[in-house]
Amino acid sequence: MTTGRLFGVGTGPGDPQLVTRRAWSLIEKAEVVAYPAPDSGTSFARSIVAEAIRSDAVEIPMVVPMRPGRAPAQAIYDRGAADIALHLEAGRDVVVLCEGDPLFYGSFMYLLVRLADRFDVEIVPGVTSLSACAAAQVRPLVARSDRLTVLPGTLGDADLESAIGAVEAVAIMKVGRHMPRLRALLDRLGLAGKALYTSHASLPHQAAMPLCDAPDEAPYFSMILIYKGDDPWIS
Amino acid sequence: MTTGRLFGVGTGPGDPQLVTRRAWSLIEKAEVVAYPAPDSGTSFARSIVAEAIRSDAVEIPMVVPMRPGRAPAQAIYDRGAADIALHLEAGRDVVVLCEGDPLFYGSFMYLLVRLADRFDVEIVPGVTSLSACAAAQVRPLVARSDRLTVLPGTLGDADLESAIGAVEAVAIMKVGRHMPRLRALLDRLGLAGKALYTSHASLPHQAAMPLCDAPDEAPYFSMILIYKGDDPWIS
Repeated sequence: MTTGRLFGVGTGPGDPQLVTRRAWSLIEKAEVVAYPAPDSGTSFARSIVAEAIRSDAVEIPMVVPMRPGRAPAQAIYDRGAADIALHLEAGRDVVVLCEGDPLFYGSFMYLLVRLADRFDVEIVPGVTSLSACAAAQVRPLVARSDRLTVLPGTLGDADLESAIGAVEAVAIMKVGRHMPRLRALLDRLGLAGKALYTSHASLPHQAAMPLCDAPDEAPYFSMILIYKGDDPWIS
Repeated sequence: MTTGRLFGVGTGPGDPQLVTRRAWSLIEKAEVVAYPAPDSGTSFARSIVAEAIRSDAVEIPMVVPMRPGRAPAQAIYDRGAADIALHLEAGRDVVVLCEGDPLFYGSFMYLLVRLADRFDVEIVPGVTSLSACAAAQVRPLVARSDRLTVLPGTLGDADLESAIGAVEAVAIMKVGRHMPRLRALLDRLGLAGKALYTSHASLPHQAAMPLCDAPDEAPYFSMILIYKGDDPWIS
């Protein structure tokens, strides 16, 4: 018997209209759908494409606690990969929903490393939060011969500072509770005036503003964009 | 009279199925469509969504010579922006097609800077070539707390080397004729064995291989991905 195919499908930044045609049609046909989910509340990746999921689809939520240690999270992906493998071995395709793009800071890699040597895998790339934040600001993310660095806001000040210093365009992701520290760092580097803050890009409750107007309480899904080059767009 | 709306629409990396639902439906409805085009041959951005363009749509190709000086290119965008403005002033929406994402190394910024102060603008973000190359390789682009830097291959060796040294994940875009030099640089840095080469990602003639197997003649639409961290995927 032929085994099923594993699809890692990007669902984009949040607006269901920003899902690709291929992702949407794969989800509409999918008999088995897997996705990461928080221990309370709904899965963000699933919520984006909820309208496309068949009512008779088998769903495999992989419940990852909000602040897991490394070991518990690994056990959850072990279990998720085993559940998915049973369907693939039975010849059923499995669509794994991934917010944004599956390979851009995505948890899909934890399934990939467990399943790619045994099953056929196709990645359907998605629109990242990076592109959605630039779109929300209506400002170029990176242009011409500029260098762009993407940094998780969870990094320490020294790592952030050296990376920011080396390039023209910077995106700091996963701002969340690091907001006051990141703001202080950018102030010290003289870059706060060139920084833009966006939260929940592409969603109805999207917020986009200069960093100086941004609140100190930032959600996890927020980002700071900085353009250090000659930009007629940021004074 | 209400003026029209300017849409900067990402058409994704090349596969028409990787266009977002919103981009596709905007193009299907568009009465006026503008796009960059080479001085010979067809526009790549237009070719991706050709099937969605209405037969009665007004088309505004902006013909940019392959190796323009800065001044001629600016004159072309002046002219394109003026043509687009006439439609917007007459109350007609204009959809500008942008390969990949409009704000990620896109020429759309040249229209934005000329039109954004007078007209309402909406950006529809698209899947970038970056995501498409990672998808073609079925390898994580960037994960966990990694830093990612995106570099144009047109930069000099010193600029490339300092940027590459500072981060875990690197993408070198626009490889083209710089391939032999880039390969020599990565060899010297001891990174050639960790580098992956992709050309024409998501298109039927896509090629994806380790850098060591890649030809010296690389097309403009090609990319090198390097992952320096602990990656079970790249030995």
